[in-house]
Amino acid sequence: KPLHRIAVIAGDGIGQEVMPEGIRVMEAAASKFDIGLQFDRFDFASCAYYEQHGKMLPDDWKSRIGSHDAIYFGAVGWPEKVPDHISLWGSLLLFRREFDQYVNVRPAKLMPGVTAPVVRRDGSPRQPGEIDMVIVRENTEGEYSSIGGRMFPGTEREIVVQETVMSRIGVDRVLRYAFEVARSRPKKHLTSATKSNGIAITMPYWDERVAEMAKSYPDVTVDKFHIDILTAHFVQRPDFFDVVVGSNLFGDILSDLGPACTGTIGIAPSANLNPDRSHPSLFEPVHGSAPDIAGKGIANPIGQIWCGAMMLDHLGYREAHDAVMLAIEAVLRSGSAEVRTPDLGGKGTTREVGLAICQAL
Amino acid sequence: KPLHRIAVIAGDGIGQEVMPEGIRVMEAAASKFDIGLQFDRFDFASCAYYEQHGKMLPDDWKSRIGSHDAIYFGAVGWPEKVPDHISLWGSLLLFRREFDQYVNVRPAKLMPGVTAPVVRRDGSPRQPGEIDMVIVRENTEGEYSSIGGRMFPGTEREIVVQETVMSRIGVDRVLRYAFEVARSRPKKHLTSATKSNGIAITMPYWDERVAEMAKSYPDVTVDKFHIDILTAHFVQRPDFFDVVVGSNLFGDILSDLGPACTGTIGIAPSANLNPDRSHPSLFEPVHGSAPDIAGKGIANPIGQIWCGAMMLDHLGYREAHDAVMLAIEAVLRSGSAEVRTPDLGGKGTTREVGLAICQAL
Ligand SMILES: CC(C)[C@H](C(=O)O)[C@@H](O)C(=O)O
Ligand SMILES: CC(C)[C@H](C(=O)O)[C@@H](O)C(=O)O
Repeated sequence: KPLHRIAVIAGDGIGQEVMPEGIRVMEAAASKFDIGLQFDRFDFASCAYYEQHGKMLPDDWKSRIGSHDAIYFGAVGWPEKVPDHISLWGSLLLFRREFDQYVNVRPAKLMPGVTAPVVRRDGSPRQPGEIDMVIVRENTEGEYSSIGGRMFPGTEREIVVQETVMSRIGVDRVLRYAFEVARSRPKKHLTSATKSNGIAITMPYWDERVAEMAKSYPDVTVDKFHIDILTAHFVQRPDFFDVVVGSNLFGDILSDLGPACTGTIGIAPSANLNPDRSHPSLFEPVHGSAPDIAGKGIANPIGQIWCGAMMLDHLGYREAHDAVMLAIEAVLRSGSAEVRTPDLGGKGTTREVGLAICQAL
Repeated sequence: KPLHRIAVIAGDGIGQEVMPEGIRVMEAAASKFDIGLQFDRFDFASCAYYEQHGKMLPDDWKSRIGSHDAIYFGAVGWPEKVPDHISLWGSLLLFRREFDQYVNVRPAKLMPGVTAPVVRRDGSPRQPGEIDMVIVRENTEGEYSSIGGRMFPGTEREIVVQETVMSRIGVDRVLRYAFEVARSRPKKHLTSATKSNGIAITMPYWDERVAEMAKSYPDVTVDKFHIDILTAHFVQRPDFFDVVVGSNLFGDILSDLGPACTGTIGIAPSANLNPDRSHPSLFEPVHGSAPDIAGKGIANPIGQIWCGAMMLDHLGYREAHDAVMLAIEAVLRSGSAEVRTPDLGGKGTTREVGLAICQAL
């Protein structure tokens, strides 16, 4: 059997606590489905590393993790010690670009045992399965450019500009990915986030490319909404959506808002994909390092485990992915306070939840 | 008593239907509070006008409405007839800039008789008054610039760029306005929307100016959130917010999302303010022209009336504003199907709701 080498970067804060549970479940899945996984741990890409070395990464970071099959990532950031623009641009955002992880995928799914903060029109609660969407985000260009600057600094005339940059190559490849995902799902419905009525240069271009790409996918139903009203629709009728594709910024917003609507933002996973497989893809929970609860052993490990499931899927093990998801759902459904962390109203620890999911698997 | 001249532009679609009810209530308020209002009607800034004249506005539009005390606006846009970038940039967005309406204000308030689609953590419904926030948006610069363009058009190498432009003058004046609003409210709490971890040139500048301005308002509690997680907080704990200030784009998003969370997006008002009073301010409902229900006489006029109340406030008549708001709330609270339009689950007409609010006043 093939051996998949996984670079493990636990990072900062609760990243250190949820990662062991992620690996525990990955190892259980590997033995159950006879998958060859090798975990290589790295201490860089963390603020702790920065404090010691004055930089986020060693000079040879690319050769050390660049040939791995995937990066399993915890969380990075500790604003009190290292400013975000150093820690994030020096690790996560750098990986996205240097490894050309041009697609970010985040599911927003109403899970059993989780209460969604958004209800139906008549006030009744939404049920598991009723909301099930995937946000596909452009992950390398767009609004997150590093082009721009400041003029007349420190004066009354001060002006700051920053470019949004969209390329045909960059837009088309993420759209193609999103259309493929839509095609693979039962509803075959793709929604594009735009703002062509206000951001009247780049966004009309995005719309044009969506319309062009749609021609190759006549089996996919396509619609588009301006980002302002789209966020409103997420709240009012999240069940309407299937696959939603957006630029770097719009995808960023929607992939927090979607999981917020399903009540799963604390357990949501994120996959930073290089679909061409020329570089490793990176799998991380959305929650971040959470300095406020770090060190207490009560962080919810489900996000770390869920993104591990996405990693298994990416490596070609769909069955293992499904099994891990079923195990997560079984533990969530059981509702027992011992296997829920405090964020979900329980009194379980990070470890107890990890063990329970292994058990269920 | 002073006579206030109001330029009335009903515009397109349901704008034509809700405006008469807005004026009806404004006239009732004027007679009750002895306010001198004169309404001058204009047919331009509509797609109907465009179809006849090949342009959205007559050449002398500025002299025709520029010396009015306010513009009372219905809705503009009819995408099937005129593309949005022509109708909107040729009217509403042009007014915002030419009349230097640099602040956009939109309240998001949970009203009696309206069910909010977001519930409390325990699943129980949120109550009127529990959510009461004001979104203050920069309205003239930022992401809505007209600088940028396309290179290598039509080829594989195609690149499209657009500038975001923030000026010290532009940022400071909207922040000052927002801080003043925060200071005037009981909670004195201001939240700034940012994305300085990703949009790492303009947004750190926004943060800097917020921090600087905060020094002059030691009585105001200030916090900031990145726009992605901020949208999540709107859903999860909308009761936390008081005044929220954002750039042109972020303010646009939040001022739809806020009213969506309170279930009032169909009745939300919007004020485009020139606080210096060197040009008229513009008051419009948020809902737009709604081609799908236009001509049926069932559009909800509350947004038009609510923004009329904001106009009275702007003209200096706080008492009249409060009275109109109480009348709106009384009609909403009554819950009678005759005085609710179908969007709120009733069977009343636009006219019936307008008359009921006049009655209540
Ligand atoms: C129509 C559109 C350009 C406009 C905007 O984005 O400003 C609208 O959404 C608004 O908020 O008034
Ligand atoms: C930390 C931040 C720069 C990042 C982003 O905006 O991309 C995060 O919000 C995410 O979505 O992964």
